[in-house]
Amino acid sequence: MSYNLLKGKKGLIFGALNEQSIAWKVAERAVEEGAEIVLTNTAVSIRMGTIGELAKKCNTIVVPADATSVPDLENLIDKTMEHFGGKFDFMLHSIGMSPNVRKGRTYDDLDYDYLAKTLDISAISFHKAIQVARKKDAINDWGSIVALSYIAAQRTLYGYNDMADAKALLESIARSFGYIYGREKKIRINTVSQSPTPTTAGSGVLGLKDLMDFSEDMSPLGNATAEDCANYVLTLFSDLTRKVTMQNLFHDGGFSSMGMSRRAMKTYGKGLNMRFDDVHDNHYPFGHE
Amino acid sequence: MSYNLLKGKKGLIFGALNEQSIAWKVAERAVEEGAEIVLTNTAVSIRMGTIGELAKKCNTIVVPADATSVPDLENLIDKTMEHFGGKFDFMLHSIGMSPNVRKGRTYDDLDYDYLAKTLDISAISFHKAIQVARKKDAINDWGSIVALSYIAAQRTLYGYNDMADAKALLESIARSFGYIYGREKKIRINTVSQSPTPTTAGSGVLGLKDLMDFSEDMSPLGNATAEDCANYVLTLFSDLTRKVTMQNLFHDGGFSSMGMSRRAMKTYGKGLNMRFDDVHDNHYPFGHE
Amino acid sequence: MSYNLLKGKKGLIFGALNEQSIAWKVAERAVEEGAEIVLTNTAVSIRMGTIGELAKKCNTIVVPADATSVPDLENLIDKTMEHFGGKFDFMLHSIGMSPNVRKGRTYDDLDYDYLAKTLDISAISFHKAIQVARKKDAINDWGSIVALSYIAAQRTLYGYNDMADAKALLESIARSFGYIYGREKKIRINTVSQSPTPTTAGSGVLGLKDLMDFSEDMSPLGNATAEDCANYVLTLFSDLTRKVTMQNLFHDGGFSSMGMSRRAMKTYGKGLNMRFDDVHDNHYPFGHE
Amino acid sequence: MSYNLLKGKKGLIFGALNEQSIAWKVAERAVEEGAEIVLTNTAVSIRMGTIGELAKKCNTIVVPADATSVPDLENLIDKTMEHFGGKFDFMLHSIGMSPNVRKGRTYDDLDYDYLAKTLDISAISFHKAIQVARKKDAINDWGSIVALSYIAAQRTLYGYNDMADAKALLESIARSFGYIYGREKKIRINTVSQSPTPTTAGSGVLGLKDLMDFSEDMSPLGNATAEDCANYVLTLFSDLTRKVTMQNLFHDGGFSSMGMSRRAMKTYGKGLNMRFDDVHDNHYPFGHE
Repeated sequence: MSYNLLKGKKGLIFGALNEQSIAWKVAERAVEEGAEIVLTNTAVSIRMGTIGELAKKCNTIVVPADATSVPDLENLIDKTMEHFGGKFDFMLHSIGMSPNVRKGRTYDDLDYDYLAKTLDISAISFHKAIQVARKKDAINDWGSIVALSYIAAQRTLYGYNDMADAKALLESIARSFGYIYGREKKIRINTVSQSPTPTTAGSGVLGLKDLMDFSEDMSPLGNATAEDCANYVLTLFSDLTRKVTMQNLFHDGGFSSMGMSRRAMKTYGKGLNMRFDDVHDNHYPFGHE
Repeated sequence: MSYNLLKGKKGLIFGALNEQSIAWKVAERAVEEGAEIVLTNTAVSIRMGTIGELAKKCNTIVVPADATSVPDLENLIDKTMEHFGGKFDFMLHSIGMSPNVRKGRTYDDLDYDYLAKTLDISAISFHKAIQVARKKDAINDWGSIVALSYIAAQRTLYGYNDMADAKALLESIARSFGYIYGREKKIRINTVSQSPTPTTAGSGVLGLKDLMDFSEDMSPLGNATAEDCANYVLTLFSDLTRKVTMQNLFHDGGFSSMGMSRRAMKTYGKGLNMRFDDVHDNHYPFGHE
Repeated sequence: MSYNLLKGKKGLIFGALNEQSIAWKVAERAVEEGAEIVLTNTAVSIRMGTIGELAKKCNTIVVPADATSVPDLENLIDKTMEHFGGKFDFMLHSIGMSPNVRKGRTYDDLDYDYLAKTLDISAISFHKAIQVARKKDAINDWGSIVALSYIAAQRTLYGYNDMADAKALLESIARSFGYIYGREKKIRINTVSQSPTPTTAGSGVLGLKDLMDFSEDMSPLGNATAEDCANYVLTLFSDLTRKVTMQNLFHDGGFSSMGMSRRAMKTYGKGLNMRFDDVHDNHYPFGHE
Repeated sequence: MSYNLLKGKKGLIFGALNEQSIAWKVAERAVEEGAEIVLTNTAVSIRMGTIGELAKKCNTIVVPADATSVPDLENLIDKTMEHFGGKFDFMLHSIGMSPNVRKGRTYDDLDYDYLAKTLDISAISFHKAIQVARKKDAINDWGSIVALSYIAAQRTLYGYNDMADAKALLESIARSFGYIYGREKKIRINTVSQSPTPTTAGSGVLGLKDLMDFSEDMSPLGNATAEDCANYVLTLFSDLTRKVTMQNLFHDGGFSSMGMSRRAMKTYGKGLNMRFDDVHDNHYPFGHE
């Protein structure tokens, strides 16, 4: 499937690690749709993952950069503009990591140096990337910038920890900078709030499997996959969405607008029965639908 | 417990049926806090329920009125002002009913005459009561009007059916009229989005028990009871909240801001295990909290 | 510009009146993108407007239907399926009208028969169209349904009157039915909350010009036009957005996420100066941006 | 006016500088309502302001503490518990400062060390205060914690700069910790999103006057004052709101639910006329209300 939706467009993609990564899928699909891209990730991630294959497939380069380092970002933007021979049109931020989660620090026992890192890596890096791009006037008018978020920014999910706060900050940065960059250059900035996705980053999260099952049961269309997400992000990079900005866009099969689905309630009711050692044939007939 | 929080205030309360009713609790507590009140309900509800006892206890009258009938409301407001010898200060709307739910019509097979009734009874009656009160200049400056709502206005809960749409309409009316009545008379209008509550109205809903268990498990403070709700509504009628208007206020133990709690996930996980005939000792260790 | 984004897709479009109509632009663009369409409007609108030209241009038929009439909708769906030789893929609802606004009834003096009509025409017609389509199994799996909304559903704009309540109801219907139709047929339902647009319907609104100027000044990307809207709606009909459902999507140049822009504040400050007969050289230097 | 609403309750109040401070008003009113309090601020603020007078009036002590310093907070909680002879019941966080705003760094030219400070002072300090209190088990079951926020967390206001992001983070922390502290100790955590208020902190903001005029014109009840805010916060500390948690509560005269008021549109229209050198007698007749 290709519509040439991004024909002639150029973009910079942060955060592809391996085939599971959403950023990987976005890169692949963007190229299929006619875009040229540049890839970036940290030196460590480049070694750990397989981004080199992706670069080959996409006929492009990988520029190592720590997205929390302004000098690294300056070099990245320079190299990207050099590669493209000028400005580019879109940028994807797909970066998140919490040392508190990694080290098993719970939310009521946060290490504040770790918290500062969580925010710097997962949210402030977005501001830095945009600020550097803007100072270098690297993005064409009517360009499009997207970061990936999660509903934890609005609603607490146990175990998601300080990443929830990082996502809230990330979404705020999209709004705040969306105003500035929009009025000046007509560049739009949005976040996509994606279903839980079994990426390498996500799969480190204990309990992700059950959460994904719950999310799948609650969402009338089921969880959105990384492929689905890539398709959606393409529309946001295309010229068809030029007046959408400063939004957090749920791409989640309907999860964000659900309070309780019949399917999830059935499973929940089974759990309730077990909990109460209640073995009678339980119906879950809340309404008839 | 009494703070004389409503000393000298007078109010009109719609929707008390029996001791389970939230409106009943509000009436009792308002009087404890020093208010005078007038009660109203439909003739049928007055016969079916025990509102007479409440009136006795609160040393007041019951004025029968169908809240969808403008002439009934005109008579009600007249009688209320007569009883009080003038204007009053607060009004509670606690009315909701769906013929579609009662008759078992699912949301994809709505009867449109029923839907019109659902909206008229559960939402438009709120507009009518306010419009009539305003035309008769029945409410003192800095008065307070509250209607009870439910989170179904924002998120779909299976089986809640067209009542979800009615609640969305109700909340919109609070905003729209809140602007008008606020700029003119400084009268504030808000909705309180309450936890599922085992009232007579609610208990007609099949599956309410399981939903309440889920809601209890999800809410860090547990479900808010009718008594809790009465206390909260009192603060909204008091002079301490004079600048709060056009808001939908969640009074739900935290449910509305939860995506997934540890407790609910444990129950859910048990249900998942049963579903998949998966009997291994399942941990739900999403994070460590 | 054509990407063949809707190649092979078929859709039904409500509400095209003349060249200003958003529905008109959607129809034109959908055909450019490879879709086949059927058009519908009321008999009166068909006579008043120029939809016949559009039909010719789009090589299709116009089926007259009053969207508040279930029999009319049944006939419409039958004729549409007949025309297409089977099911179709998308549906656009672009219908709104308030007799209260037309007759100059203010929000504190609503005529309740008119209100019932406002809701029936502007919101319930959306439920009816979907319910009839579903009963006739008229829409293919993974189909897409969109209705046009306005931010008045969330925030009060003076003069928008009972249309605000209608839009809140419309958005609720999208969520409620989105759940049902999604879990069953994977059909998604969303609303697009569009900038104020100078259509024939909109231009009847007194004061629209000033509101549009304010909205233009507040929105970093400026107001979204009818053409912009058509492009955005196409993405929602395409296969690239299959997991987006039950959402209200702001398509407004950023207006919905703005509290105050520098540009709007400058104009506002000028008005303040006049109001206070305050002629000193006023700066509006809130911050330095 | 006193209801003894907080009789027997004890609380810790951050951020009173002088008589303009919201925290000052909360302290005064809390004591009037029967509470005992302890005051805290930074050593510099204690010298600059007049908190000593407040302490005298409230018959209490001031404990100096930098709210970004965990050791300072540990000492503060110890001293507070010592003063009270045990646990306490409520806590107010009214702290915010942006070095970027102070130094005139615009949002597209942020200094990232300053940003880290903005976030640490204005948001993370809230987490630190709660985490320290919880580790010392300093707050009674069913206690209440409030932080002051601003609508910039949801909508961009030019010039508010990185404080918008700090407020978004602050509100997220209230949700995240509200879950943990709620399920464990039934302690609730909320933010109050207050109208712009002419405090010392606020009055440093250039352009605040015009913003306050706009906000006043938009809000049907006018801007909420510091006194109004104190009254509202008292209700949140009282036993009448025990099931409200993880909420951001707008206390703003209706501003947050307004799109455009008649009054603001009149002023805006005057500004438009001037802008366009258009001196005809302009009506702003959007609707008739």
